[in-house]
Amino acid sequence: MEKNYGPLNPGKRMLMGPGPSDMHPRVYQALITPLVGHLDPYFIQVMDETKELLRYVFQTRNEFTLPVSGTGSAGMETCVCNLIEPGDTVLICVGGYFGDRMAQMVERHGGRLVRLENEWGRPFTADQVNKALKENAAKVVGIVHAETSTGVLQPLEDIGRVVHGHDALFLVDTVASLGGVSIPVDEWGIDACYTGSQKCLSCPPGLAPITLNDRAVERIVNRKTPVGSWYLDMSMVKNYWGGSRVYHHTAPVTMIYALREALVLMHEEGLENGFARHALNYRAFRAGIDAMGLKFFVEEAYRAPMINPVLAPDGIDEAKARAHLLKGYGIEVGGGLGALRGKAWRVGLMGQSSQKDHVLLFLGALEEALLAQGFRTAGSGTAAAAAVYAG
Amino acid sequence: MEKNYGPLNPGKRMLMGPGPSDMHPRVYQALITPLVGHLDPYFIQVMDETKELLRYVFQTRNEFTLPVSGTGSAGMETCVCNLIEPGDTVLICVGGYFGDRMAQMVERHGGRLVRLENEWGRPFTADQVNKALKENAAKVVGIVHAETSTGVLQPLEDIGRVVHGHDALFLVDTVASLGGVSIPVDEWGIDACYTGSQKCLSCPPGLAPITLNDRAVERIVNRKTPVGSWYLDMSMVKNYWGGSRVYHHTAPVTMIYALREALVLMHEEGLENGFARHALNYRAFRAGIDAMGLKFFVEEAYRAPMINPVLAPDGIDEAKARAHLLKGYGIEVGGGLGALRGKAWRVGLMGQSSQKDHVLLFLGALEEALLAQGFRTAGSGTAAAAAVYAG
Repeated sequence: MEKNYGPLNPGKRMLMGPGPSDMHPRVYQALITPLVGHLDPYFIQVMDETKELLRYVFQTRNEFTLPVSGTGSAGMETCVCNLIEPGDTVLICVGGYFGDRMAQMVERHGGRLVRLENEWGRPFTADQVNKALKENAAKVVGIVHAETSTGVLQPLEDIGRVVHGHDALFLVDTVASLGGVSIPVDEWGIDACYTGSQKCLSCPPGLAPITLNDRAVERIVNRKTPVGSWYLDMSMVKNYWGGSRVYHHTAPVTMIYALREALVLMHEEGLENGFARHALNYRAFRAGIDAMGLKFFVEEAYRAPMINPVLAPDGIDEAKARAHLLKGYGIEVGGGLGALRGKAWRVGLMGQSSQKDHVLLFLGALEEALLAQGFRTAGSGTAAAAAVYAG
Repeated sequence: MEKNYGPLNPGKRMLMGPGPSDMHPRVYQALITPLVGHLDPYFIQVMDETKELLRYVFQTRNEFTLPVSGTGSAGMETCVCNLIEPGDTVLICVGGYFGDRMAQMVERHGGRLVRLENEWGRPFTADQVNKALKENAAKVVGIVHAETSTGVLQPLEDIGRVVHGHDALFLVDTVASLGGVSIPVDEWGIDACYTGSQKCLSCPPGLAPITLNDRAVERIVNRKTPVGSWYLDMSMVKNYWGGSRVYHHTAPVTMIYALREALVLMHEEGLENGFARHALNYRAFRAGIDAMGLKFFVEEAYRAPMINPVLAPDGIDEAKARAHLLKGYGIEVGGGLGALRGKAWRVGLMGQSSQKDHVLLFLGALEEALLAQGFRTAGSGTAAAAAVYAG
């Protein structure tokens, strides 16, 4: 091959899609920390700190709290394949793309799947789950907290009580939500919970932190059949991350450096301050979108503050507008997924991307992108957002 | 939590264990390339270059060549779970820790396992494989090229012919060897091959490049049962890395930046020059070990140039000597694994760690570590290695 490969040069980005989100400069710095081996005493210390910090962010005392060596979907599959044995009845609440993915994984691992379906954009109620559990004695109930495909933030507390009333395990996907809104895992009775590194945690994609309480761990320990995946088998992985440090697979050291630093940043800011920041920037963003006369996909009461599909007005080519944002401003937003394909922009305000400058610049750039297609907004989005910030 | 977490600060390391190995400064720089989304047009271009460069390193024309989003063991499981259906007879050559791991994975995914065992430290012969295949009509034959647990470099070409003579697929683990010795995948008739990012490719751990030829892909496409893992299901992953770019899971963007840069470095050096470098540094290392009167675990003809267990002399505490190297010099070598636990040091000369300075410094530091335990070497290892370099 005579080809010359130049240096990496993506240019500037403002990541406002459904993840990855922007990273703090200190997380970039963490990535160039000198590499050490996965059994190095220093790395053991980094692992311990990472577990401790994850417990802080998950608001849990669960001993079993660690990052799975894969992206968010690996976290999902880890929970599914460790908690479920072939033939187990499993209830999955499917109200979007990722609920559907969880259902697919249940079938993949031999579970007897009961799908509780909602139309996209509506959250599930505790009554719905209760009724479904009366008809099907499920061992596990799975639900997505913030559906990045729809932007719904699912209330969890009442459903958790119902699930436990039926003696099932409560499995919650917090890939998009953890770090952006409060998720008191222990208080809400979440038995198993996973997230992704690249959303509100603002790390590179590639890790999936999970936390399992004693009930969930007991389920794994008492399995009659081996876990369907060797790589994701938590009965082995926990010995590497836990007391005996028995080698399982080579941990992604550099990624864990980055995760640890991102978690330290969250610890320094304080969880509550971070949630308030996400709430404030969502309010400014909402004021801007409303002022421009654009519509959200989800009704106000159920919107996730960190990820919102905004419907493209009639006659607007959403992909063309996205390309305009990317080319003119380096702003990356998501297109619609599944049922919203071609119909909406998915705008993320996650982690380090939940910032005043991101909101104002995005709203201004969107005004330009719409005008370029001949669409005049009802009013200035940036002015409305700025008014929120001014208080 | 009132705790203060300081900055990451592992100090200096010279990574000479069984991986991870040292990274080139340009790979560190690649890690801080501005993050973009996994569907960003720029990232699509990076993916295409990465596939092209992986084909160069695997010496293959296989269209299906991409990095799996997990560590080397995820690459192993990807090949096993995609190529094998429940009930399939599979022959695995087990001559070390990682051959045994492959066998475990075959059972995990419902294969009918036939174990061909060798004592640790001895390679398999084509006759052995031929005899085993006459007795068992296996659909897949799996073998490890460079066993990092033993340091054996397994000859492959004759075995590949035997495997194809029995119409089976030839699956080869090149986690430790790819990039350190020539592995002409197409020429040797390897149907499926995987590696890890953190050994001779000198990237952070976390990616597992694999390549599958048309026979292997056909096997996957014609499966009667779904792949046992959703995350590692290559029938879906290939659509994201291939033409349609359909989203499967969020690719580990930063890790792929690093991999691409490491591959560009290998392309600039030229594969043959890289192999010659690994061979030279092994020769110098061998001269040093011989001069010191120490013993290799594997007989000369079958040694892998990039990973070698050296037996600890009688009366020497190998863990104490390793701690001496780490504390005094930041040198990290591996302890013995499995049957060699407590009996040997596993010394890696992989990728960027295969360097003259690494060899001389390691030999000098080892002399000190042995002397600290009262052991006098037969002669100077560094002098013998320097003589090799002087030519």
